[in-house]
Amino acid sequence: MRKVVGLAAIASVLAFAAPATAQEKIKIGVSYPTPTHAWAAGMNWHAEVAEKRLEALYPDVDLILVNSPDPSAQASALEDLVAVHQIDALVVLPFESEPLTDPVLNVKKSGAWITVVDRGLSQPGIEDLYVAGNNPELGRVSAKYMKGRLKDGDNIVILRGIPTVIDNERFDAFMEEIKGSGINVLDHKHANWNRDDGFQVMQDFLSRFPDIDAVWAQDDDIAIGVVAALKQAGRDGNGMFVVGGAGMKQIIKGIMDGDDLIPIDVLYPPSMIATAMDATVAHFKSNGPIAGRYILGATLITPENAESYYFAESPF
Amino acid sequence: MRKVVGLAAIASVLAFAAPATAQEKIKIGVSYPTPTHAWAAGMNWHAEVAEKRLEALYPDVDLILVNSPDPSAQASALEDLVAVHQIDALVVLPFESEPLTDPVLNVKKSGAWITVVDRGLSQPGIEDLYVAGNNPELGRVSAKYMKGRLKDGDNIVILRGIPTVIDNERFDAFMEEIKGSGINVLDHKHANWNRDDGFQVMQDFLSRFPDIDAVWAQDDDIAIGVVAALKQAGRDGNGMFVVGGAGMKQIIKGIMDGDDLIPIDVLYPPSMIATAMDATVAHFKSNGPIAGRYILGATLITPENAESYYFAESPF
Repeated sequence: MRKVVGLAAIASVLAFAAPATAQEKIKIGVSYPTPTHAWAAGMNWHAEVAEKRLEALYPDVDLILVNSPDPSAQASALEDLVAVHQIDALVVLPFESEPLTDPVLNVKKSGAWITVVDRGLSQPGIEDLYVAGNNPELGRVSAKYMKGRLKDGDNIVILRGIPTVIDNERFDAFMEEIKGSGINVLDHKHANWNRDDGFQVMQDFLSRFPDIDAVWAQDDDIAIGVVAALKQAGRDGNGMFVVGGAGMKQIIKGIMDGDDLIPIDVLYPPSMIATAMDATVAHFKSNGPIAGRYILGATLITPENAESYYFAESPF
Repeated sequence: MRKVVGLAAIASVLAFAAPATAQEKIKIGVSYPTPTHAWAAGMNWHAEVAEKRLEALYPDVDLILVNSPDPSAQASALEDLVAVHQIDALVVLPFESEPLTDPVLNVKKSGAWITVVDRGLSQPGIEDLYVAGNNPELGRVSAKYMKGRLKDGDNIVILRGIPTVIDNERFDAFMEEIKGSGINVLDHKHANWNRDDGFQVMQDFLSRFPDIDAVWAQDDDIAIGVVAALKQAGRDGNGMFVVGGAGMKQIIKGIMDGDDLIPIDVLYPPSMIATAMDATVAHFKSNGPIAGRYILGATLITPENAESYYFAESPF
C-alpha cells in the first residue's frame, strides 16, 4: 500500500471510487492511553469524531482505534495492530516515551507509516510525522496577555505543572517574555496540573501575599482550583484574573459568556489527535508531502474566537 | 465563516450536505508566482491537482487559484481575492517577503485565515499556519548519505545555490554533519540552482581536482549540469555519484530505473502547495486544530520509495 501517485489515482479519488473490499482498504491504527483523566477523555472523543468523519469521506479508509491502560498493554496493542490488522499506518500517542520506543520501531519495520502525537519517542527518526503542541509558545502567549493587562509594579503568582521538560519549557518561555515588563513574580510553585493541588497552592499564596493582581495557572485544571481558592477567600474581585491553558470545555464556555475571572485561554488541545489522523489519511490521499514536524500553535482563545474551539459534546 | 463546531456540523459533513449555493461556499484563494521555471511549474501543476481533488471531496469548497508575474501584481491579486471574491482563507507563496508582508496583513485584517508557504513574511505572527521545507535537514540528510557511501580520506566537491539564508542553512548543516567523518571537501562554489552554472562550476572542479569521489550539488538542476560535465570529461565512472535535491521528475525516474550516477534524491518538493491547501481546507472541516508550523521533512528518495514521489504528468 503506498501513497497515491499521478493522475490515475487522482481520477479514482474524483470518482469517489467503488466501495472498496476489506482487503483493498487502507488500514490505519490509532493507539493512545485509556482515558482516565479529562484531557485524555477529550482526546478519545475527538479521535472517535475524526474516525467517523474520515471514514465517511473516504470509503476505502478503515481507522482502528485502540486505547490501552498502561505502557505494556499499549505495546501489545501495537503488536496486534500489525499481526491481526496488518495496518498500513499508525497514529500513536505513547503512554511513556522509553517503553514504547521499541514497539513503535517494530511497527515501522513492518513497513507502516508512523505518526507520533504529543509525546516523542526516546530515539529520533522513527516517526514519519510528529504532531504536537507548542509548550514554549504556550508560555509566551500567556506572558504577552499578562503584559497587555498589567502595568509596571503589578504582582502575579505562578502555579506550575508536574516537574517535567514540558513544564520547564512553558515556565522558561513565560519568564523570558515578561522580562523587563516590571511585573513582579511573587512566587511560583508546582501544582501538578491538578485541581486540588491548584486549590491548596493558591490558598498558600493568598495567605502569604495580600496584593496579587493576576495568576498564571498554566493549565485549566489548576485554574479551576485557583478560582475556587480565590472565591473562598473573597479575593476574586478588583480586576483579578487567572490564565490557564489547554482549552477545556467549561473554560471555553466561560470565555464565550464573558467571564471576568478567566477571560481567555491558551490552546493545547486533545483534539490534536484528529489533526494527526487527518494528516495520516492525507499521506494516502493527497498529492502533497506529509512527512515532517507539525507543531500546533498555542492559539489565544478570546470571546471573539472561543466558539470555534467549543465542542459541546466533548467530555473536555 | 468559521471552523466546524460540535456534532451538528460533524453530522452535516457525514451526510455530505446538500449542494451548497455560491454564497454558502467556503472560498479559499491560492496565490503564487507565475510558473516561469521548472519548480514553480511543478507547484502550479500540484495546486491544480489539489484544487480538483479537494473540490470533488467537498462540494461546498471553492478554491480560487491565481498566479502573478511580479510582487506588485501579486499584491493586486490579493486585493482582488478580498474585494471581488471575499475569500474566507488565503494560501500564499509570497514572491518576495518584504513587498508582500503588508498586502497579506491586509487580507488577514479582512478576517481571512492565512496560510503562508515556503517563503516567510518580514513580520512574524501574521500567518495562522506556516508550511515549508526543511533546509538544514536537506543538508543533514545529504551528508548522512555521503557518510554511508564514502570512507575516510575520500574527496568531494560542493556546488552551492544562490547566496541566501536558504543556501547557508543547507551548507552549514551539511558541513556540521560530515565533521569528523574524514571526508575531504576539496572546494565549494555557488552554482545558483542553475543547470548551466552547475556545468561550468563542475568543469572548473574537474580541471583542478584529478581525484573526486562524489559531488554534493544540493539541487536537481545543478545536478543535471554536473552530470553533463562529468560525462563530457569521461569522469562519470568508478563509483562516482552526485546528490541533488528537490524531487525533480527526471531525477526520480532515474532513481526508479536504478541510475548509478544520481542514485538518490532529497525532497524539497513544489507539491508542498498541496499540503498547504489540504491543511487550509481542514481548518474548515476538521475537529482538529490547524494553526502552527508544519515543517516538511527532507525525505531521502531511494529506489524503494521513489515511485511514491513520481508524478508522470507534472512538468517538474
